[in-house]
Amino acid sequence: METKEYDLIVIGAGPVGENVADRATAGGLRTVIVEEELVGGSCSYWACVPSKALLRPHGVLSEARAVAGAREAAAGDLDLPAVLRRRDAAVGDWDDTGQADWLSSAGIDLVRGHGELIAPRRVRVAAADDTVTLLAARHAVAVCTGSAPRVPAELADIQPWTSRDATSAHELPASLAIVGGGVVACELATAYAGLGVRVTMIVRSGLLGRVEPFAADAVRAGLEALGVDLRLPAAVAEAHRTEKNAVLTLDDGSRVVAEQVLAATGRIPRTSDLGLENVGLVPGDWLAVDDTLRVEGTDWLYAVGDVNHRVLLTHQGKYQGRAAGDVIAARARGGDVDAAPWGAHVATADHAAVPQVVFTEPEVAAVGLTAAQAQDAGHPVRVLDVDLASLAGAAARADDYRGRARAVVDDDRGVLLGATFAGAGVADLLQAATIAVVGEVPLQRLWHAVPSFPTLAEVWLRWLEAYGRESALTTRR
Amino acid sequence: METKEYDLIVIGAGPVGENVADRATAGGLRTVIVEEELVGGSCSYWACVPSKALLRPHGVLSEARAVAGAREAAAGDLDLPAVLRRRDAAVGDWDDTGQADWLSSAGIDLVRGHGELIAPRRVRVAAADDTVTLLAARHAVAVCTGSAPRVPAELADIQPWTSRDATSAHELPASLAIVGGGVVACELATAYAGLGVRVTMIVRSGLLGRVEPFAADAVRAGLEALGVDLRLPAAVAEAHRTEKNAVLTLDDGSRVVAEQVLAATGRIPRTSDLGLENVGLVPGDWLAVDDTLRVEGTDWLYAVGDVNHRVLLTHQGKYQGRAAGDVIAARARGGDVDAAPWGAHVATADHAAVPQVVFTEPEVAAVGLTAAQAQDAGHPVRVLDVDLASLAGAAARADDYRGRARAVVDDDRGVLLGATFAGAGVADLLQAATIAVVGEVPLQRLWHAVPSFPTLAEVWLRWLEAYGRESALTTRR
Repeated sequence: METKEYDLIVIGAGPVGENVADRATAGGLRTVIVEEELVGGSCSYWACVPSKALLRPHGVLSEARAVAGAREAAAGDLDLPAVLRRRDAAVGDWDDTGQADWLSSAGIDLVRGHGELIAPRRVRVAAADDTVTLLAARHAVAVCTGSAPRVPAELADIQPWTSRDATSAHELPASLAIVGGGVVACELATAYAGLGVRVTMIVRSGLLGRVEPFAADAVRAGLEALGVDLRLPAAVAEAHRTEKNAVLTLDDGSRVVAEQVLAATGRIPRTSDLGLENVGLVPGDWLAVDDTLRVEGTDWLYAVGDVNHRVLLTHQGKYQGRAAGDVIAARARGGDVDAAPWGAHVATADHAAVPQVVFTEPEVAAVGLTAAQAQDAGHPVRVLDVDLASLAGAAARADDYRGRARAVVDDDRGVLLGATFAGAGVADLLQAATIAVVGEVPLQRLWHAVPSFPTLAEVWLRWLEAYGRESALTTRR
Repeated sequence: METKEYDLIVIGAGPVGENVADRATAGGLRTVIVEEELVGGSCSYWACVPSKALLRPHGVLSEARAVAGAREAAAGDLDLPAVLRRRDAAVGDWDDTGQADWLSSAGIDLVRGHGELIAPRRVRVAAADDTVTLLAARHAVAVCTGSAPRVPAELADIQPWTSRDATSAHELPASLAIVGGGVVACELATAYAGLGVRVTMIVRSGLLGRVEPFAADAVRAGLEALGVDLRLPAAVAEAHRTEKNAVLTLDDGSRVVAEQVLAATGRIPRTSDLGLENVGLVPGDWLAVDDTLRVEGTDWLYAVGDVNHRVLLTHQGKYQGRAAGDVIAARARGGDVDAAPWGAHVATADHAAVPQVVFTEPEVAAVGLTAAQAQDAGHPVRVLDVDLASLAGAAARADDYRGRARAVVDDDRGVLLGATFAGAGVADLLQAATIAVVGEVPLQRLWHAVPSFPTLAEVWLRWLEAYGRESALTTRR
């Protein structure tokens, strides 16, 4: 059988693989991408995009209902079939023609099927129709296969929904039990409760483990306001199905009965069937990489996105993908590698400035270090807390606006290390904080970055007032 | 009569005067503030705050109606009495007790009445009850009296509404003719049209003179979609009233008949009755200042906010106020003056980074230089245009989202000079651009400021892609 030769083989055509391939192609490499499901990946079809489509209709109605005068005009019921049709449109009815066309237009070859490493730089692709394609890479292979939901042992027998099912469902159950308390659990609880489903969450420890505690508290209050029955701390001890329902027995002996169960209990790497054993690695493991996204101990294998376990977020994987595509091309062509911090060929922000938005009601948006993380890392930390309700922009936006924002400052260097916002409409406040963290813009300079009145961005003014400004009498603070 | 002595006299207790007084007091100066109307100023009672209160209910309903599934739930009518009650609450029913209490808590004395300069550093305050207070300043006087609407001669006879009337009205006219095409005209046209009033705009030249043309076009389309009858270019030649209506004859001979007329044709400085003639200045003039906000040719007089004609925006006036209060205190105490660009005692951002949001439908948000302004200033300009509809965050937010964003880049230095956004919900995108401009964060560093997926902030990614990224093959662009 003929082996097709490329400079670079990318396994996995989600947003991450697409970015690796795109940048490498721009850098002059002949690139092929291998995909066994839909080009565009989980994010486009079974995660970020459809979950936001399910969340937005109730979310925007809540915003309207928070404003006297508009509240009365927005008192009708959500049109559930219209919500689901809108979700279907958002995922392009699970048709990847457009994305495949984009690959072609970018000069990237696509081979459909399951890719497996059979030796260093060699990939075998088995298509659903048993066609086999052998690929060889002159320079590198990039694994961009992402992660899959982890189904815990105690739920395995009842075959629960995973986020894939919950984001693609065409019929809503009357009741849904969600096991887990992370971002996926909280977002899908919000979505389903907003759509009128009776939701119970079974959460082992706190919600949203790594965010600032005040943000987790705000999400908890929001879920309860939506009628979600929160069992916390609690775990499933046993699960079985009756004819109509699933029955979960919790560790305190109580029971939860629900038409459907969603396992949202973490992710596992999609590396178990990649042939890692043929190149000296362990199937099922996350793939540890250096800051150029190259797998440790190899000079040809890259792992980009979820699969390297640095940050499990689409946008951060795309960011890694740009660096990886560029550095693969640079190395292939014997060019300079720009691997200093914040260089073009490293994913420095993975350590210092990962942004995340949780699309709950209220939203949570965070970047960089929390106060606890900054303290643990040994920074001289100063914490600035602002009640967003004190802002004219909050009062303009909603009656009885509730929200809070925290800035974490390196008190020696006078720069922002992180920020967390919780409140309606905070998602779009995040980029300003991300730029301040990444750009290491001094807070004294930020006094000149005037927020427009009256917008939520005036949180910056409150932070700066709390931080202090040198006056004729006092020095800062 | 006894003369009361202070370190600093501030004339005008709007947000600008409050900031001057607050910072000077923090710097150790004994400060008095003089106010003839309400403490809190126009912004709180007759401008920014009530106009946003009138805009938000329809604005948020429009957002809900842009999302299938929610649209059906938000099909009711605005509750107009509730909208007006909410506006009344936003302005505290035009009661300034809370703001006056704040002055007191900050250690700032308040004298109510009309202030007039009678000599350098001397102010005479005449209260409504004819009480007169004489004030003397050991160090400085700061004029923060702001600006007032200009009523053009051809409308003077019919005593039109100004923005004060339009923002504080308790009964809505059936029809409103708005003369002017600037921010006030466009926002109030949006507000009144959204509340069901038949609105005609008579605009001499283009809308929103100084914004990027594409943003003005978007606002024009938005006004037309709200049913506003735009007469452009057109001017009022003659105006008279009948029993029920005002009748405007335009310069092309056509007529506009409306129950009420709003003059939104610019602003004049509130300096005609300040006694400027007693200190060698011309009543009715704008007060020219240096970057420390000190009136040229004096060593004791400051003019802060609208009245100096640098930037007619509340937030920018407050920004000037902080610098002015600090520098007045520094000079009074013989301390160092930090007057280098971006120092604590100068309003550098007035030249380089003025942010503004126009709360129309769609919103416009802009900071820094437009492409034309940057070219005129001799910068090596590169323009990056992005169709916001191409963003996943736009599709998540609204069906058929329309919007556009432009970045203006200094192509030699690789930094942002300005940015303009037009689209629903862009107000809170602005601060990120403001920080990038003020912080002079290099675009190559901004590749590490990852926008969260899927949010409108992904506009940054599109801008950066358009700008280019060094690859192994190509240098930027």
